[in-house]
Amino acid sequence: MIKTDILIIGAGPTGLFTVFEAGLLKLKCHLIDALPQPGGQCAEIYPKKPIYDIPAFPEVLAGDLVDNLMEQIKPFEPGFTLGERADTIEKLDDGTFIVTTNKGTKHHAPVVAIAGGLGSFEPRKPLIENLGQYEDKGVRYMIKDPEFYRDKKVVIAGGGDSALDWSIFLADVAEEVTLVHRRNEFRGALDSVDKVKELKDLGKINLITPAEIVQLEGEDHLEAVLIRKNNEAKEEFWLPVDEFIPLFGLSPKLGPIADWGLEIEKNAIKVDNSLDYQTNIPGIYAIGDVNTYPGKLKLILCGFHEATLMCQSAYQRIFPDKKYVMKYTTVGGVTGFDGSKKEAPKAVVKAIN
Amino acid sequence: MIKTDILIIGAGPTGLFTVFEAGLLKLKCHLIDALPQPGGQCAEIYPKKPIYDIPAFPEVLAGDLVDNLMEQIKPFEPGFTLGERADTIEKLDDGTFIVTTNKGTKHHAPVVAIAGGLGSFEPRKPLIENLGQYEDKGVRYMIKDPEFYRDKKVVIAGGGDSALDWSIFLADVAEEVTLVHRRNEFRGALDSVDKVKELKDLGKINLITPAEIVQLEGEDHLEAVLIRKNNEAKEEFWLPVDEFIPLFGLSPKLGPIADWGLEIEKNAIKVDNSLDYQTNIPGIYAIGDVNTYPGKLKLILCGFHEATLMCQSAYQRIFPDKKYVMKYTTVGGVTGFDGSKKEAPKAVVKAIN
Ligand SMILES: Cc1cc2nc3c(=O)[nH]c(=O)nc-3n(C[C@H](O)[C@H](O)[C@H](O)COP(=O)(O)OP(=O)(O)OC[C@H]3O[C@@H](n4cnc5c(N)ncnc54)[C@H](O)[C@@H]3O)c2cc1C
Ligand SMILES: Cc1cc2nc3c(=O)[nH]c(=O)nc-3n(C[C@H](O)[C@H](O)[C@H](O)COP(=O)(O)OP(=O)(O)OC[C@H]3O[C@@H](n4cnc5c(N)ncnc54)[C@H](O)[C@@H]3O)c2cc1C
Repeated sequence: MIKTDILIIGAGPTGLFTVFEAGLLKLKCHLIDALPQPGGQCAEIYPKKPIYDIPAFPEVLAGDLVDNLMEQIKPFEPGFTLGERADTIEKLDDGTFIVTTNKGTKHHAPVVAIAGGLGSFEPRKPLIENLGQYEDKGVRYMIKDPEFYRDKKVVIAGGGDSALDWSIFLADVAEEVTLVHRRNEFRGALDSVDKVKELKDLGKINLITPAEIVQLEGEDHLEAVLIRKNNEAKEEFWLPVDEFIPLFGLSPKLGPIADWGLEIEKNAIKVDNSLDYQTNIPGIYAIGDVNTYPGKLKLILCGFHEATLMCQSAYQRIFPDKKYVMKYTTVGGVTGFDGSKKEAPKAVVKAIN
Repeated sequence: MIKTDILIIGAGPTGLFTVFEAGLLKLKCHLIDALPQPGGQCAEIYPKKPIYDIPAFPEVLAGDLVDNLMEQIKPFEPGFTLGERADTIEKLDDGTFIVTTNKGTKHHAPVVAIAGGLGSFEPRKPLIENLGQYEDKGVRYMIKDPEFYRDKKVVIAGGGDSALDWSIFLADVAEEVTLVHRRNEFRGALDSVDKVKELKDLGKINLITPAEIVQLEGEDHLEAVLIRKNNEAKEEFWLPVDEFIPLFGLSPKLGPIADWGLEIEKNAIKVDNSLDYQTNIPGIYAIGDVNTYPGKLKLILCGFHEATLMCQSAYQRIFPDKKYVMKYTTVGGVTGFDGSKKEAPKAVVKAIN
């Protein structure tokens, strides 16, 4: 059982910044995310695109925004449960919560902050019969640990940045990498496309286009995939593989959170924006894209504000008898749980004569 | 008469970011500030100190934060009335407003956003009889245009960064610079103190410490100041000068805005935080440090959020019949009024073969 002060569901920009604001209040955080990496939409959908409306950044790549947030919260040592979806919540008699993921990991905290964005990112799956039968037995939709694929025969399907980037990366790790895409054209960064071409010419990536994977085979574990060329002849052939990774993108779904007894409106969680972004269940807050209230804007900078106010309320809930006196970071500095300290230099007093 | 869409009172971080959010909605802004430069508290009180709780900046100097905001809003070409205090407001029959400064400058706009922070920064004045009589006639508390002092005899009083920095700057502009401070010790950046010492040794700054200015003289305009040394003898002597600049810091006062008929609570303006940060007078909003509501935190990041929601409401007020559909900056780009355009690069589609 993982224990923490604030359990944050969703490691997008809102969830990440919550760690910082909680840390200033000396509250510990743990984050759950269905994705294998933190950053939410910014990391998953548009890491290489510039955002122009983050205050005081005339321009910042979404991926860099996430990196900056990760650096900012590092002193507060957040815990992460990645690649797992928060599925169920239970309120104990003492008012605390237990949240369990689809993989059975349990988390216990007095406060739950749902920063779930548009929902947990779920993979778009190809339409192949028996696909489900091989999930986690040769079929995976996300790459959590590339080392898992060392010296294995891997087939990747897809035509976007993820398919290109992972093919390049695994070319050095796996025994054999086959990239299958239903067209000849790829949609991704120019240098990734060029790199894949180079590795193909070197014989390090086996490129099959235009083609699709149409059938899977194997006893307990995947052993081979049937590939059908998208040409007139529609030739088909079996390719022996250990692992099949369909990378057709992830799409967010509010999912199980919708059944937690929270007031839902237009696929978002209703909160009290006049006070602390708490939901109808005391102790459960909803911040960032996942919440709704009159005038709500689904913007990153709004999530930052909501997280900040929410942490103050969480503090009151956790320490009902303490009175927190806010200090500017410039004045009070930042003391990380890792022992690090940041402080403004003191003014210098010096005589002239 | 200056005309604009949103008249912003206060050019602190909140007021500045309002220009950006309004610009995205194609609304023009004009800012009034009592200070000679934009940036509010950040620029006036702690430009060289680091802030740690601006989202995605693990550390940023307050002065750099202001510079970044100025760069971010540049495409939207805001107007500025600097060094003037907004004193009176008048609501016309058509629901628009006229705001007049202490120098008589008039501004006309359908929406007024008060981003006045802790209030308009007013100079701390030395206790000298007849000081008022020479204001703007040889006595000024802020330096708006250094060129004004070219080839004049200037005396500066003070022991902090402003006094040091302006003495250094004017040493190259004025005919004669005298710096008077009541102690030998200065409180400022180490290199400024060293630089003043250097200029003193070169005879370019006339340094008189410990000493105070105790009397002023002159017919219509200041002609001389009486300096009293803070030693045992308390010697006094007259120094002929054209301009006296007491730089004892500025302190914020809510001031005339308190009489505009707005609901005030604890020296701040009450707003509707459940919707759009509007005050009790429709069309007048209050954002950033100047406002108050349950749970209010006087933080820079909160001002950014408030400004953003406020602009949406202002848009509705100005264009009651139009429906604004928000577009992410990443997707829609940013088009400045100066003709500049920022856009995310399009994804590349390329065949391999
Ligand atoms: C193409 C594009 C461009 C954009 N441009 C801009 C822009 O210019 N400016 C701007 O401000 N915003 C922009 N946005 C929106 C911005 O990305 C979102 O506002 C922001 O990501 C919201 O952050 P968040 O942390 O609230 O949620 P998200 O970033 O959506 O993160 C939520 C996370 O929660 C996880 N999650 C949800 N439910 C569960 C669960 N049950 N279990 C485990 N994990 C779960 C998800 O997997 C996800 O990682 C853009 C969005 C897109 C798609
Ligand atoms: C030493 C110090 C350290 C700080 N550290 C932090 C920190 O770490 N993090 C953080 O988030 N915040 C910090 N703050 C607070 C932060 O500076 C404020 O929250 C922020 O400046 C508020 O911005 P604002 O634009 O609302 O108001 P301000 O910055 O106060 O700007 C308001 C402007 O309005 C002008 N004005 C007011 N009335 C009038 C009028 N009638 N006519 C003309 N002009 C007028 C004023 O002259 C002023 O320039 C700190 C403050 C101080 C003093």
